[in-house]
Amino acid sequence: MTEHSLWRFSRALHRAINERHFDDIEALIDDDVDWAIYGPIDMFPFLGARRGKEAVLEVIRQIADNIRVRRFDRETILLGVDSASSMLRYSLTMLDSSKPISLRLAHFAQFKAGRLLSMKVLVDTFDLVEQALGRPIHLPKIASAV
Amino acid sequence: MTEHSLWRFSRALHRAINERHFDDIEALIDDDVDWAIYGPIDMFPFLGARRGKEAVLEVIRQIADNIRVRRFDRETILLGVDSASSMLRYSLTMLDSSKPISLRLAHFAQFKAGRLLSMKVLVDTFDLVEQALGRPIHLPKIASAV
Repeated sequence: MTEHSLWRFSRALHRAINERHFDDIEALIDDDVDWAIYGPIDMFPFLGARRGKEAVLEVIRQIADNIRVRRFDRETILLGVDSASSMLRYSLTMLDSSKPISLRLAHFAQFKAGRLLSMKVLVDTFDLVEQALGRPIHLPKIASAV
Repeated sequence: MTEHSLWRFSRALHRAINERHFDDIEALIDDDVDWAIYGPIDMFPFLGARRGKEAVLEVIRQIADNIRVRRFDRETILLGVDSASSMLRYSLTMLDSSKPISLRLAHFAQFKAGRLLSMKVLVDTFDLVEQALGRPIHLPKIASAV
């Protein structure tokens, strides 16, 4: 049984982010890749949507400029033939402030011939923003708990 | 081929939220269910973790007290034998303010004998908070885009 594309992609992505080694990941991205990490792009310019291999490689470089992955745990995973989704907990370091960030994210990936065709990532962004700010944002209680 | 547990659960959940009909969903929840919608519980008390059927039924009632689902689109879906994950876009109405809210969420569900055993939900919470407040939260630019 061949290894699922997710594992190869995941290793190459973490190597790109932590070691600035971009050759492996470059070979694993489809030319027409569709990419989005939903979140506040004003605060984190490397979030948001990208289209095409060059734009995605560029955003992975930006992520590598800003973040180191200290640790990640895959909490849940579903694998299809050419697709995968998982929920992960990441322990990161923001490089400019050396601030530790802990976040949970969900990703949905699609592959074609072993290359990434689509990646959509959702993050608990309010939690992320509060950690990056280093202070809680005061929120009114909106919903009623009857 | 029998229908996947996700579809039956999804119909029952939406019926519970929109019509306050709780009988169907009650029959589809395992006694030892593990449930979490990650997000700011200070603002939305029906977010957070719950354990056991009674607690989960109670939180679904709280959601029904606060929200109506106007529309949802399933953008991505992965089905396992007893598991499912999807990314969805929801158009909601907050009942107390009649405010429309549009949000993207990812869920990971596990079933046992057709009943929900685990549900983990991730939401783009910063976007949700800004919509619920009705105004943007000013954020400093933290990451560098070199």
